Amino acid sequence: MEPINLAEKLGQFSEHWSPKIVADYNGNDVMVVKVLGEFNWHSHPDTDDFFLVLDGEIDIEMRDRTVTLMAGEMFVVPKGVEHRPVARKEAHLMIIEPCGTPNTGDAATAVTKDRI
Amino acid sequence: MEPINLAEKLGQFSEHWSPKIVADYNGNDVMVVKVLGEFNWHSHPDTDDFFLVLDGEIDIEMRDRTVTLMAGEMFVVPKGVEHRPVARKEAHLMIIEPCGTPNTGDAATAVTKDRI
Repeated sequence: MEPINLAEKLGQFSEHWSPKIVADYNGNDVMVVKVLGEFNWHSHPDTDDFFLVLDGEIDIEMRDRTVTLMAGEMFVVPKGVEHRPVARKEAHLMIIEPCGTPNTGDAATAVTKDRI
Repeated sequence: MEPINLAEKLGQFSEHWSPKIVADYNGNDVMVVKVLGEFNWHSHPDTDDFFLVLDGEIDIEMRDRTVTLMAGEMFVVPKGVEHRPVARKEAHLMIIEPCGTPNTGDAATAVTKDRI
């Protein structure tokens, strides 16, 4: 029951593509993540994928278009839509997914989401 | 399938306590809202209540404590917990609630959430 300062949370780690859970919302993990470079192409068959850029800029590549997001911009990738986030410089994001969603779309390759 | 710029969305209206839907996420409304002054005491028996301050500062008063949120800070009021948001100066928020949730906790007094 404390305020959650997203920049302070982001200051607690340095690794890329390793989302950290900062809050719970109705069975969803609210997370912050640092990203740099290209993630893998993936989709989530059962859930939309929520992105808010807090710092920096990312491309969300989809098979038929690319959406560029700057700080203060958000986007929801609809469930089932293949996508690949790409950051040419380090960027900081808030993301939301239902608890237990594999970040890569595949439990075999997904990272563990620690709580900070 | 366009990026959603939260500041640009907030520039489209001026009224307070009137959330505007900017995106859908798994049956939730992602909204921006301008707030000033005291809202009513209320709770949502069936849902948590997600707040992220984009600009300014708010207090979220609960019966046993008050949480002060600055820009870049978020908080989730657990379902069933009575709360009252208060903003001494105008503040801008992103909020998330399941589609159809009355903002006042009561369908009789809730505002209609327009999509922008």
